[in-house]
Amino acid sequence: MKKSLGAKTLLYPTPVCVVGTYDREGLPNVMTAAWAGICCSSPPCIAVSLRKATYTYGNIMERKAFSISLPSEDYIKQADYFGMASGRDEDKLSRAKLTAVKGDLVDAPFVKEFPLALECRLLHTIEIGLHTEFIGEILDVKADEGCLGPDGLPDIEKIRPIMFSPEGRKYHGVGRLLGNAFSVGREV
Amino acid sequence: MKKSLGAKTLLYPTPVCVVGTYDREGLPNVMTAAWAGICCSSPPCIAVSLRKATYTYGNIMERKAFSISLPSEDYIKQADYFGMASGRDEDKLSRAKLTAVKGDLVDAPFVKEFPLALECRLLHTIEIGLHTEFIGEILDVKADEGCLGPDGLPDIEKIRPIMFSPEGRKYHGVGRLLGNAFSVGREV
Repeated sequence: MKKSLGAKTLLYPTPVCVVGTYDREGLPNVMTAAWAGICCSSPPCIAVSLRKATYTYGNIMERKAFSISLPSEDYIKQADYFGMASGRDEDKLSRAKLTAVKGDLVDAPFVKEFPLALECRLLHTIEIGLHTEFIGEILDVKADEGCLGPDGLPDIEKIRPIMFSPEGRKYHGVGRLLGNAFSVGREV
Repeated sequence: MKKSLGAKTLLYPTPVCVVGTYDREGLPNVMTAAWAGICCSSPPCIAVSLRKATYTYGNIMERKAFSISLPSEDYIKQADYFGMASGRDEDKLSRAKLTAVKGDLVDAPFVKEFPLALECRLLHTIEIGLHTEFIGEILDVKADEGCLGPDGLPDIEKIRPIMFSPEGRKYHGVGRLLGNAFSVGREV
């Protein structure tokens, strides 16, 4: 039997994305967002939703650019911290002893120590409610060479991304390989 | 060292979401989408992106409603099949021997056998490129009672959702608990 839980933001899994921006003074800032997802294949785009109150919101509005860095499991503490503190109050990267690298193609920094980074230019801004959705065109993806598989693509088991459970507020890692997409369904 | 991979839709993890709709004749249809994510906390909203060519696209435009059902690992074959076949050509739920249940609050069906279902009414339609993003307000979440934890919320380890790796096209399960959000970061 199914139980009705009401109107809640429940989805499993959600990614743990660290949004990188520059502020007015040109200082790099990062914040962790769980409300993100790919939203178009061509042009390749990612959507990330932020509250107006965040420091990152103003930075994106001003610079029209952001990055998404994906922390590996090794950086779970730093990623969690990036979601709790504000760049208005402290230099989060310095405190976490992590390094900002300026994007090649956009006016935004990514986190050097994290295995994957997306450079995005702002395409659309959609006011929804408490959150504003920023749709960014992915101009380039950068991955640690050690995280690539034999096909030259990132291997999720080497990236070891973190997933977030909304409401329950827990982080989990990636589990076992279940099968190949566009393949296992042929048996139905 | 990081290697540049070009403009690609890479994000880890992405959820495996099954979108439920009714067509003009009132027949239930389901399709699997990987481009989805929560996009607002208040009102609670989810964004799912679909190509215009899909049968589901027309159904949502007409009915202004959809559901998101999350398959557990047990239904990986059915979920993969739902992403390969079209409701224009076949009755996917019948072939997969799964059951459509009419939503309580919206004009869309969800999949009875899947552990979690979100009932959504269409709020916004955003044309991006190849994909159109549908933003739906989550009016209710329904979860199998056996998947709830002691706090009354779904437990990701009981839901056992599937995650999809874009480009590499692999499915993985949920791994081990890494820590509590808004907590482990205090150590930084």
